[in-house]
Amino acid sequence: MAVGLIGTGMMGVPMGLRLLAAGHDLRIFNRTPVKAAPLLAAGAVWCDEPMALAAASEAVITLVGGPADVEAIYLGPEGLIEATAPGGLLLDMTTSSPALARRLAAAAAARGLDLLDAPVTGGVGGARDGTLSILVGGEAAALERARPLLQALGRTVTLQGPAGAGQRAKLVNQTIVATTLLAVAEGLALALEAGHDTKALMAAIEPGTAGGFVLNNHGRKMLAGDFAPGFFVRHLLKDVELALAAGEEEGLRLAGLALVRDRLRRLVEVGQGESGVQALLLAVERTEDA
Amino acid sequence: MAVGLIGTGMMGVPMGLRLLAAGHDLRIFNRTPVKAAPLLAAGAVWCDEPMALAAASEAVITLVGGPADVEAIYLGPEGLIEATAPGGLLLDMTTSSPALARRLAAAAAARGLDLLDAPVTGGVGGARDGTLSILVGGEAAALERARPLLQALGRTVTLQGPAGAGQRAKLVNQTIVATTLLAVAEGLALALEAGHDTKALMAAIEPGTAGGFVLNNHGRKMLAGDFAPGFFVRHLLKDVELALAAGEEEGLRLAGLALVRDRLRRLVEVGQGESGVQALLLAVERTEDA
Repeated sequence: MAVGLIGTGMMGVPMGLRLLAAGHDLRIFNRTPVKAAPLLAAGAVWCDEPMALAAASEAVITLVGGPADVEAIYLGPEGLIEATAPGGLLLDMTTSSPALARRLAAAAAARGLDLLDAPVTGGVGGARDGTLSILVGGEAAALERARPLLQALGRTVTLQGPAGAGQRAKLVNQTIVATTLLAVAEGLALALEAGHDTKALMAAIEPGTAGGFVLNNHGRKMLAGDFAPGFFVRHLLKDVELALAAGEEEGLRLAGLALVRDRLRRLVEVGQGESGVQALLLAVERTEDA
Repeated sequence: MAVGLIGTGMMGVPMGLRLLAAGHDLRIFNRTPVKAAPLLAAGAVWCDEPMALAAASEAVITLVGGPADVEAIYLGPEGLIEATAPGGLLLDMTTSSPALARRLAAAAAARGLDLLDAPVTGGVGGARDGTLSILVGGEAAALERARPLLQALGRTVTLQGPAGAGQRAKLVNQTIVATTLLAVAEGLALALEAGHDTKALMAAIEPGTAGGFVLNNHGRKMLAGDFAPGFFVRHLLKDVELALAAGEEEGLRLAGLALVRDRLRRLVEVGQGESGVQALLLAVERTEDA
């Protein structure tokens, strides 16, 4: 399929490489052209602006920074919804806001386009290995059109509901992950501060009620003092802010998540924005801080 | 072995039954005698007071409400440390405070007794099936003496460190579980409030980074509106208060855990103390509450 990809960052590059490997023709655009180099080397074609890319593609995937970028690319002057011919297929795989996803879908429908929100979980490793979980919001028929592309990118592709539901599912996931990181950080801080034998501790608690991906992965990194990024603090902060806003739209005040946001902000302020999210351990408060 | 058991509540009864089934002689005492009935029916012998039980036992297990009960039974007038002959073995399996466990161990050592703190995870089901994880603090030699008893009760018996380390490990576990419950409650509240397809949601997020025991078990109960107790809200509140105090002793202010404590207290105040801990879903705040 002739596919356009806008956004060739940490996720976009490995995802684009998988589309090329699956035999799709790939046109790309990125605000920072140098980041697209690995895709150009693998056979992708550069486009100087999104309109030209849209005109030449049967389907366009966007993977940009956040809702403001998404809004500009889709709804701005010379935006994708204007630039795409009726019958076109647009997939926003950026983690963004459910409300914006609904606005995009309505604007697309008015022009006879299919549009899906399709954010992912599984990180850079999942993007490279094609094992992402892709959370889709929109019409089932549009998902069937997109499936050949999505199957090259992810292992699990689930229709979460109408437009916006993919974004909401992603934000539910990030809400749980973010506050579970706080849980693990506070528990392990107690062990570390007391000089507890953390090997004996993990042997006892990992298989039990405290066990899960966050303890087994991020928790082990906390104990090792390894704050190298898998997923950046500043990216989790962005997702947490989106989730808090989505909660407010539903009339919810997610107080645990707000506490995590405050800690992530503090980490960014002290220059830890590009540490891995397990750096939340460093934000556990001491009584003398109070 | 001639074993004494003080405390025949929700955990003590199934644990006592396992000791009897493993061929140990069991003497029991409980403040509320009627709760001991299943053990008496299975062959345990009633003692009218802890001193008589201690005098007739090679090892004594205590499983009582909390630190105040533990302190009274061990250190009070006619307490176990006075009543036990030198060379005796005492095991406190109550979830209690690391600092108190260290005081008990010092008092026991001064009288030539072996004493271990040995709280458990795995709940009533684990107690019934003998699959508890037993977190031991104290001397390795004392653990070897206790091992025949502990093997009848749990699948995993780990020496966590010196006196108090068993309690600390338990409180680390409860810290992680409690705040992960908050994480899952807030995430799923967002889904439920928006009328999201929760079956599609769980299929997508359970295998991923949000996955773990709490989501897979308590989360499923939240989605089903099933607040029947496995583990009582009021018991988790007790453990959370102990963990906060243990954190303070180490100079830590566990702010996420303090938020969970406030919510658990609110649940107790509105009569949900004997609901299951998944009732934390009901404590997610609405914007109109603010």
